[in-house]
Amino acid sequence: MKILHSTPTEDGFFMPAEFERHSGCLMIWPERADSWQYGAVEARKAFAEVAHAIAQSERLTVFTSFEGYDTARKMLEEHIRVIEMSSDDSWARDVMPTFVKNSEGEIRGIDWGFNAWGGLIDGLYFPWDKDNRMARKCCDLLELDVYDKRAFIMEGGAIHVDGQGTAIVTEACLLSRGRNPHMTKQEIENELKKYLGVTKVIWLPYGIYLDETNQHVDNICAYVAPAHVVLAWTDDENDPQYNMSVKCLKVLENEKDARGRKIKVTKLPLPNPVYITKNECEGLVDFDGEPTRKPDERLAASYVNFYISNSAIIMPAFDDEHDDEAADILRDIFKDRKIIQIQARNILIGGGNIHCITQQIPE
Amino acid sequence: MKILHSTPTEDGFFMPAEFERHSGCLMIWPERADSWQYGAVEARKAFAEVAHAIAQSERLTVFTSFEGYDTARKMLEEHIRVIEMSSDDSWARDVMPTFVKNSEGEIRGIDWGFNAWGGLIDGLYFPWDKDNRMARKCCDLLELDVYDKRAFIMEGGAIHVDGQGTAIVTEACLLSRGRNPHMTKQEIENELKKYLGVTKVIWLPYGIYLDETNQHVDNICAYVAPAHVVLAWTDDENDPQYNMSVKCLKVLENEKDARGRKIKVTKLPLPNPVYITKNECEGLVDFDGEPTRKPDERLAASYVNFYISNSAIIMPAFDDEHDDEAADILRDIFKDRKIIQIQARNILIGGGNIHCITQQIPE
Repeated sequence: MKILHSTPTEDGFFMPAEFERHSGCLMIWPERADSWQYGAVEARKAFAEVAHAIAQSERLTVFTSFEGYDTARKMLEEHIRVIEMSSDDSWARDVMPTFVKNSEGEIRGIDWGFNAWGGLIDGLYFPWDKDNRMARKCCDLLELDVYDKRAFIMEGGAIHVDGQGTAIVTEACLLSRGRNPHMTKQEIENELKKYLGVTKVIWLPYGIYLDETNQHVDNICAYVAPAHVVLAWTDDENDPQYNMSVKCLKVLENEKDARGRKIKVTKLPLPNPVYITKNECEGLVDFDGEPTRKPDERLAASYVNFYISNSAIIMPAFDDEHDDEAADILRDIFKDRKIIQIQARNILIGGGNIHCITQQIPE
Repeated sequence: MKILHSTPTEDGFFMPAEFERHSGCLMIWPERADSWQYGAVEARKAFAEVAHAIAQSERLTVFTSFEGYDTARKMLEEHIRVIEMSSDDSWARDVMPTFVKNSEGEIRGIDWGFNAWGGLIDGLYFPWDKDNRMARKCCDLLELDVYDKRAFIMEGGAIHVDGQGTAIVTEACLLSRGRNPHMTKQEIENELKKYLGVTKVIWLPYGIYLDETNQHVDNICAYVAPAHVVLAWTDDENDPQYNMSVKCLKVLENEKDARGRKIKVTKLPLPNPVYITKNECEGLVDFDGEPTRKPDERLAASYVNFYISNSAIIMPAFDDEHDDEAADILRDIFKDRKIIQIQARNILIGGGNIHCITQQIPE
């Protein structure tokens, strides 16, 4: 593994879209007792369901602690690779490399800085040193060269790209005080251009209400094809999310992508608000003397947090009246892919969803 | 990774000789403070020298703890892969899989039981659960199917094969009370035949004097070609090793290999006895309240403990008058390979040598 101090864009590398073909996928086994209720038993089942859905068409590697290995190995099908690697939690999207490729198909990783979504300002746990080392170690394992960008705080969930020069991000996240507060919006945009191989960055103002990542884009808006996104939507004007989604829609309607195309926006309904129960909260151990969640806290549930595998859309379900409608919309968009719905409440409780616990490796 | 409960021999698999071509090699980074003096600083340098010698012609993977990763990554050349995996110590030969292959070139691993060279009877440390899990996890990583033989205690250093039906072992080791005391010699031999694909097992009585592995064969005798071994030798009749080597020689002179050939024995001189110093002992932390070594203890130094890489013989040197003679003998045998001598005192102090800290993967 070479550690590179040039930038992907100057080297002819760019981040492909998720809807392009993958050579594989990465996940991390859930173990953290203040994230995953009742010893992570139900979370593990949900993660295993996601893993099995992905492994139908992709070579999947699941990372686990030493302690978690045996359980992961037992619960995961034998064609899934299980490898020990220390982590602080299970958010592969955010701690694994962002992969870029060039026109010859060579793949490299980007090792962003990771500080648990806000460091000592509004991060979600401390320390995060194990997470922060994973991207580089993953490139070492995969024998890929890696760009050292640890000085810049970024997560995979904070960016979506079309693979044709356009990135979508949220101001709420990228301009948050806990990430790169010494940089202006323009400076941050310039870094994305240097590293993702994009020429256009579209800034949505918000993500999902109460999303504790400072509103990652991947929970509200995702590219489903060139010049086509889905946007999480509610028609309930009393929901704080309503105005947030309206403002994002306005940006998208008034923007063009890197190739000058208008962007088609398909609204994906939100589930009815999901609240954590007292019983679920009792299953979470405290962190640093404080509970990580409180009963009746609203969780940032969204159908947009799906994973696009080579053969399927693996999307969350919430035992909600909108589950089928959301699935139908995605089925209509992804005509060549199977729609796999996974009951995701036990992932959501941890603070994210299916897209957050996966990271694709382009082919 | 499939976990197999059949046996390699019935599946058409066998262990190739070390002098055949390798696809790669495995090592484990030294860290244990009761094995490696003064914070393992000198041991790491020696391991890195061995690694770099191997990596000249083989794809090398070095496993390390989370804590050891950064140092290993810094000290090892960038084309060497460094991967996190928990271990109890650094003896890749004994804790990594023994690899077998079939006539189509498919590779599988054997996951022997490991109990730190004697378990609670005369093992060298406790616990050994991390070591005991490594072979299977390594196969998982390499995406190789693995034979589950954890019920049988065995180490890679306890066997040498010619890849043509013959294995050489020592009675001192394989019949030790701490390994498989419920089995007869014949039963143990039968297991070797089932797992290594051999039809003949040659039992040397001894290994090297004071070798704390219960005298592994790989410190006294090694195959260098079909029907040709080197044997550690001293002409000093007052050395306890003298009678041990004489008895081994007699066995070899009176045995034929699996193909009915007489075995050529080349004597490889031993270095003059090597003793650990008081200063070196002070650099080792105690284990379970007791020192692991005492000043002036004799160490089981032997030139036989070399590694045969695709392009080189990587052999220990002891700053001893016999270093050159031993190298010349191996140079004469391995005409197509470079002889690389590495000052190995800092590996020897840990209790083994270059062969013990490596494990080849056949091509």
